[in-house]
Amino acid sequence: MTPERYEIICKVLRQRQPDLTVITDEVHKGRNLSAIVRTCDAVGIQEFHCVEPRKGYRAFRGTALGSHKWVDTVLHDNVVDGITHLQKQGFSIVAAHLSDKAVDFRALDYTRPTALLMGTEKEGVSPEALSLVDQEVVIPMMGMVESFNVSVACAIILTEVQRQRQAAGLYDECRLPESVYSTKLFQWCQP
Amino acid sequence: MTPERYEIICKVLRQRQPDLTVITDEVHKGRNLSAIVRTCDAVGIQEFHCVEPRKGYRAFRGTALGSHKWVDTVLHDNVVDGITHLQKQGFSIVAAHLSDKAVDFRALDYTRPTALLMGTEKEGVSPEALSLVDQEVVIPMMGMVESFNVSVACAIILTEVQRQRQAAGLYDECRLPESVYSTKLFQWCQP
Ligand SMILES: C[S@@+](CC[C@H](N)C(=O)[O-])C[C@H]1O[C@@H](n2cnc3c(N)ncnc32)[C@H](O)[C@@H]1O
Ligand SMILES: C[S@@+](CC[C@H](N)C(=O)[O-])C[C@H]1O[C@@H](n2cnc3c(N)ncnc32)[C@H](O)[C@@H]1O
Repeated sequence: MTPERYEIICKVLRQRQPDLTVITDEVHKGRNLSAIVRTCDAVGIQEFHCVEPRKGYRAFRGTALGSHKWVDTVLHDNVVDGITHLQKQGFSIVAAHLSDKAVDFRALDYTRPTALLMGTEKEGVSPEALSLVDQEVVIPMMGMVESFNVSVACAIILTEVQRQRQAAGLYDECRLPESVYSTKLFQWCQP
Repeated sequence: MTPERYEIICKVLRQRQPDLTVITDEVHKGRNLSAIVRTCDAVGIQEFHCVEPRKGYRAFRGTALGSHKWVDTVLHDNVVDGITHLQKQGFSIVAAHLSDKAVDFRALDYTRPTALLMGTEKEGVSPEALSLVDQEVVIPMMGMVESFNVSVACAIILTEVQRQRQAAGLYDECRLPESVYSTKLFQWCQP
């Protein structure tokens, strides 16, 4: 490993945001999950939560998620378990959802501990999940097509989260607990 | 056609932005082109420009683009032709590109006539294209992975464009020439 590479790894770890995550509600296409994990990495998310589809799509267990060395994936059997798990840790659950209750995605304060919930490709966020979330946000759409691709919607919202957190200085000092920082540093430096 | 549907079609046409477009520089994956076209529709782009990959990927000619009833695709043989075509019409060409010359994507004024140039999956924007563009913009990244998926990057930037144009009132009155409006209205109302 070159010193430059080591420096990059340290810098990225110092910008990781332990109080920010994404949880997908049965998103099943490997390429969508892959694109979501890639965006998580880009905005400093270290842990990604994934509710496994009931309908038997398990393709993403292999390549799509396995390849992501930089983001840890936590699998949940169902969305209620996943949301409860995060709420116990103090996360506010924000569903990306096209509904009348939803507010413009730029209206929320994402410097608080936030878990962004994304719905499945066809049906969107499940009613059971919606009954548990703290807020719903929507990205305004002005065309004929009614929704964005899920990985696209996720990235649009996470970029606003990143903007707010950058303005608030949340990327300026290391926010990972010392023990997590050193464990990750060790792991990432392995070839 | 229901009166509600007719109303939606009229409303979407009234929000179309003739001075906004995307041009892709040999993006070749059908699903990326598809997601880009879907996002174009969502922010009010009526005409999408696509430089065909030299390397013989033509899959998108079929399903991916053909399915897009709401956005017109203009194909170009090479990127120089595509860019020249747009510059002659008064478009400023903004390349999404990870370089030192690039400014933060939020720093530009997108209420001017703007064509957003996106690079190909592996190599990014070609050097010949870069020599012709007016500006380069970058979306800040804080992770280990060096770039976003191209359709994701396109959507992040177009959402900022949409925000600026909404604030400037550019979606408030019909901006299509009367003849284009009525032609589209007729086409879109066909089953
Ligand atoms: C393809 S959409 C699902 C569409 C589904 N028919 C519905 O109405 O919910 C997949 C997911 O992307 C997210 N999404 C797509 N477009 C969105 C928008 N404009 N605002 C907020 N979230 C969006 C939501 O999480 C949604 O569940
Ligand atoms: C997968 S990237 C290509 C990466 C290529 N290795 C490079 O360095 O250009 C495909 C396209 O997405 C866009 N893109 C991806 N990430 C971007 C970012 N952070 N800022 C601006 N554009 C980006 C650019 O148009 C790029 O050409």
